Amino acid sequence: SVNPDLASERQTASFSVEKLTALLDGSAEQTRIRRAVVEAIESDPVFSRENQYFQTQNERYEAAVRKAVHLQKKMHEMGWTENGPEYKYIYRALSGDVAFLLHRVFMRSISVLGSDKQIAKWIPLATQHKLIGSYAQTELGHGTYLQGLETTAVFDTAAQEFILNTPKISAMKWWPGDMGRSATHTVVFAQLYVHGKCYGIHPFIVQIRSLQDHSLCPGINAGDIGPKMNFEHIDNGYLLLKNVRIPRENMLSKFCEVRPDGTYVRQGSQKINYFTMTTVRISLISDEVLTPLMKACTIAIRYSVVRRQSKLKPGEQEAKILDYQTQQEKLLPQLAAAYAFHFINDYLQELFNRGYREIQRKNFDMLPELHALSSGFKAVITQHCTAGVEICLRACGGHGYSLLSGLPSLYTKILASCIYEGENTILLLQTARFLIKCFMAASAGQPVPPSVTYLAAVKHGKCPAKNKLDFLSPDIYTEAYQHVAVRLTSSTAAKLQDLIQSGVKKHDAWNQCTVQLVQAAKAHCHYIAVKNFAETVEKLETKAGIQKIMKHLCDLFALHGIFSNTGAFLHDGYTSAAQMDMVTASYLDLLAVIRKDAVPLVDAFDFTDKSLNSALGSYDGQVYQRLYEWAQKSPTNQMSPAYERYLKPLLHNTLSKL
Amino acid sequence: SVNPDLASERQTASFSVEKLTALLDGSAEQTRIRRAVVEAIESDPVFSRENQYFQTQNERYEAAVRKAVHLQKKMHEMGWTENGPEYKYIYRALSGDVAFLLHRVFMRSISVLGSDKQIAKWIPLATQHKLIGSYAQTELGHGTYLQGLETTAVFDTAAQEFILNTPKISAMKWWPGDMGRSATHTVVFAQLYVHGKCYGIHPFIVQIRSLQDHSLCPGINAGDIGPKMNFEHIDNGYLLLKNVRIPRENMLSKFCEVRPDGTYVRQGSQKINYFTMTTVRISLISDEVLTPLMKACTIAIRYSVVRRQSKLKPGEQEAKILDYQTQQEKLLPQLAAAYAFHFINDYLQELFNRGYREIQRKNFDMLPELHALSSGFKAVITQHCTAGVEICLRACGGHGYSLLSGLPSLYTKILASCIYEGENTILLLQTARFLIKCFMAASAGQPVPPSVTYLAAVKHGKCPAKNKLDFLSPDIYTEAYQHVAVRLTSSTAAKLQDLIQSGVKKHDAWNQCTVQLVQAAKAHCHYIAVKNFAETVEKLETKAGIQKIMKHLCDLFALHGIFSNTGAFLHDGYTSAAQMDMVTASYLDLLAVIRKDAVPLVDAFDFTDKSLNSALGSYDGQVYQRLYEWAQKSPTNQMSPAYERYLKPLLHNTLSKL
Repeated sequence: SVNPDLASERQTASFSVEKLTALLDGSAEQTRIRRAVVEAIESDPVFSRENQYFQTQNERYEAAVRKAVHLQKKMHEMGWTENGPEYKYIYRALSGDVAFLLHRVFMRSISVLGSDKQIAKWIPLATQHKLIGSYAQTELGHGTYLQGLETTAVFDTAAQEFILNTPKISAMKWWPGDMGRSATHTVVFAQLYVHGKCYGIHPFIVQIRSLQDHSLCPGINAGDIGPKMNFEHIDNGYLLLKNVRIPRENMLSKFCEVRPDGTYVRQGSQKINYFTMTTVRISLISDEVLTPLMKACTIAIRYSVVRRQSKLKPGEQEAKILDYQTQQEKLLPQLAAAYAFHFINDYLQELFNRGYREIQRKNFDMLPELHALSSGFKAVITQHCTAGVEICLRACGGHGYSLLSGLPSLYTKILASCIYEGENTILLLQTARFLIKCFMAASAGQPVPPSVTYLAAVKHGKCPAKNKLDFLSPDIYTEAYQHVAVRLTSSTAAKLQDLIQSGVKKHDAWNQCTVQLVQAAKAHCHYIAVKNFAETVEKLETKAGIQKIMKHLCDLFALHGIFSNTGAFLHDGYTSAAQMDMVTASYLDLLAVIRKDAVPLVDAFDFTDKSLNSALGSYDGQVYQRLYEWAQKSPTNQMSPAYERYLKPLLHNTLSKL
Repeated sequence: SVNPDLASERQTASFSVEKLTALLDGSAEQTRIRRAVVEAIESDPVFSRENQYFQTQNERYEAAVRKAVHLQKKMHEMGWTENGPEYKYIYRALSGDVAFLLHRVFMRSISVLGSDKQIAKWIPLATQHKLIGSYAQTELGHGTYLQGLETTAVFDTAAQEFILNTPKISAMKWWPGDMGRSATHTVVFAQLYVHGKCYGIHPFIVQIRSLQDHSLCPGINAGDIGPKMNFEHIDNGYLLLKNVRIPRENMLSKFCEVRPDGTYVRQGSQKINYFTMTTVRISLISDEVLTPLMKACTIAIRYSVVRRQSKLKPGEQEAKILDYQTQQEKLLPQLAAAYAFHFINDYLQELFNRGYREIQRKNFDMLPELHALSSGFKAVITQHCTAGVEICLRACGGHGYSLLSGLPSLYTKILASCIYEGENTILLLQTARFLIKCFMAASAGQPVPPSVTYLAAVKHGKCPAKNKLDFLSPDIYTEAYQHVAVRLTSSTAAKLQDLIQSGVKKHDAWNQCTVQLVQAAKAHCHYIAVKNFAETVEKLETKAGIQKIMKHLCDLFALHGIFSNTGAFLHDGYTSAAQMDMVTASYLDLLAVIRKDAVPLVDAFDFTDKSLNSALGSYDGQVYQRLYEWAQKSPTNQMSPAYERYLKPLLHNTLSKL
């Protein structure tokens, strides 16, 4: 039975939840396929996540391996294949709690970096799981800056082998998933030396554990890096190499080869490879970043209509906490952001597919723009969604702090997305570098890529809004975002030039501008996200009910951004103080409007109770009953040796006399 | 041996670290006492926290009980008493990882709420640990709004007993510490009924477990609420009461009593009791909020001078990451905030001591102001410090995400401070209510408490700064903060009045202003914190070296606040855009200045390596060696059954054929 406080929220939906779900999935058919995958996974007890919050890191690891192995069987049974329409839903349905993800990265790196011969040898072995692969790039002392990696691979011409070494502790491989306990092989990135000359970083296939008994191979020291804030199910590992010899054929050689005599040969263009790395940043957004925010919104919003606290009106019963403006102001902008980023993700996916087709035709023109967009949006979306999940957690008060709410694990996991696949600040500076370059080019009348043509059209006008309703016009707010992005880019470019002209060295000048460059990159992405949301809404004209609520969310997303960052809009007088008061008024009005559809808007994300794994967020809203029943199963409700050892002697006063 | 990259940072300190430590402690003598306590605790293996990051919730609980019991012995040995000068350092030295904290709250509540007779009976029992107490107020469905508690205590005149019940699941006690597994007794808050009439919430002493064998008493259902984001060492519990009978004498009756015939008598003033609850919010700031931020700053800043990443200047070695402006901009404002909040905490402690003396003299005039300040600062400081710890964690990249960095546990613990002892948004609204009241009074020419007299003096001037150096003048920026606080309070008061005058009901109008009321309350606290920091710096005239660096930190704290919230200062033109550019310039200049003293500034916090419990933050900066050695001890480096069960059959292809 559904909690009446939750049921009543669904009776007044202004749109069809089912139709919105289909829109989010891409089509009703996609929804059907997704649900079938979810049903197959969730009805299988091997994939259960029920005890997850009670398990130790060791138990989580074991469960993840069990699931990964079972998944092979399941896919066969269900007829799911890597190229089938179901594939992309499997990982999401498992909520990521599965091993061997790096095995896939191992395979992809061979496919992309290996010669045809290497592919023919290794891919079948990996596909049949005759080995388990990992991918060892990051070192204890080296992350983002790949050129700084210290592991060495010295070519021994006589033996036709590479000798791999970890010359010092900071060179130890550190973090690779599946490497701590599972992997038998890994791709190692190392500085290549031939005849004493360094040729830079190259990839090598190295066996690290015996295929017979899983013992470490000679010269290998590997293990698990220990507890982390989340990802307990993954055996992130370390790897020390001491004179480990591998055959010449184990250097992945699609782009570079060492001939038997030690001649180093570079061949082909690596650009497609760089593009592959770029696309990873986009590909993780959906499952790793948007899904957690959508789950957090679902949990927090459902809970906020069930939880009652204090009285809004004297004499009435306690109010649902979602009826408080402050609670709306916490949660509803996160909901709007989840939709905004869902649509920008669609846009980026499409752009990258187009880019891929162009690159296959040897047209690399789009690469700089794609790199800038993927870097900037990876950073902006991970940052925004991480903050959003934290807000949802805190908005649930004490119960949000219980692991049983599901929110702590969503938070501790999504937080990592701000760090992996490129630390966010560094990525934003990559985007900024592109913006500055394009701004200079545009100022000199040169052509620039489509996403930055707006930089050429620096207008010095004022925001034309006359009343608060004008701020519900996408033209008005999109223009304002554009204005800010241009201003921040142009003013930082000017500062940079001033510094250089005043004699500051170029790299110092750049460093002195980085705080502002980061602001410019964020403003650029924010502008594109708002513009894209507004354009998406416009295209929904055949779906009146959905278009209307999406328009509200788009407005909220845009106005929340202005309200939270008023200085950027007020700075040069583009927006006046009076207009800012209109923004505030419209923004606060919108909260009350969207609040009415808040529950249907999270229902449309269509998460099952098992997938949410939350005592606060279930579809029926029976929060208290579920917390109580679940807590009773906790291992902390077993007898503790603390009683016999410490409490009893204390209470019975039989502790040796003080 | 100290890492040379860290050692070099200490050689150029512009001030005496030892003298700054003494300033923070209050005197060199206090420093000596503190260090003696730390030494005694840390040299005792029973108090070791070495394995903490590897332990399960059950193991953490057991260790916390062991430490709590051992602490009794230690205190006796060392001659430490509850009123001695050492006492306040013990908990900090234990890093809070100890049980029976609620036992102290149990005792305090009896001392404050109990009659002399009750105190005489229960306090000796508690002091001698003949029982273990807890404090059961919060319910599954009820937190901040105490009047909403649902547990009932019905007086049975015939039996001279109260009958306690949990009428429905939302009325179950939930969260009380030490109650899940340890406590034998607890103070239960329940709605008192006599002869069918409800007299509201009252406190009752209830025994929940046998003193003989620790089994649950008749009618009691209690246990542990399961895993949380942190506080694994605490057995937060639940409690269900079913017709539990307790003698009439067990209702704590300093302020209210039920006579044998059922007559309800109210006596004395509860104001001192409300004041006690208010002071708890202030008393937690130092250990629970400031210490974690100071630790996080220590870890992140030491790591940032040891970690090298990318090249700042072409051809040179990789740069220390603290040399990047973006890294400075993350960490140094947190350092400045740690100092700012340390000094405001001193100010609040003094104010509350004065308030206590007044209240004992039956002068309750200061109560509203103290309540407003304690609510506002509890919220602002916990919010700011929680965000600061998260920034420190993220600024350490991947290694910050390892539990071994110490940062995840600092974050997950400090986060709770935003929720407990009053949820922050609700507290800020309490402060706002006080501000609005005082603003109205001041506008009507009535006297108002000292901390808000500035609200009466609404000036409509402009910021007089003419160049970026002017923004290093405390008068200039303090005035700007004051202006913003007045503007936000007055404009929200005006909105509130407008709404009411236009016919909106008072409670609706209030709700529609709450987002802005929260802003006003924050601005008020921020203004007082800046003003207090500036005044503190002024008083350091006899300590030139320390005064200079504290002045820099004060400037940074103030300018960071403006830079991060420019809209508030630009809004009505008090600060012009040109002036805001000066703020930015001065702010960025300051980062480079303070960066030089960053390590000495965290050294002055004087945390031992054991107390930091961090592979990244140790005094010698041997980060990589320590991470490696520590990780090897992780239980995840023991053999896992996953190999025999799943990996071996997979690799040997002996899994039942797909």
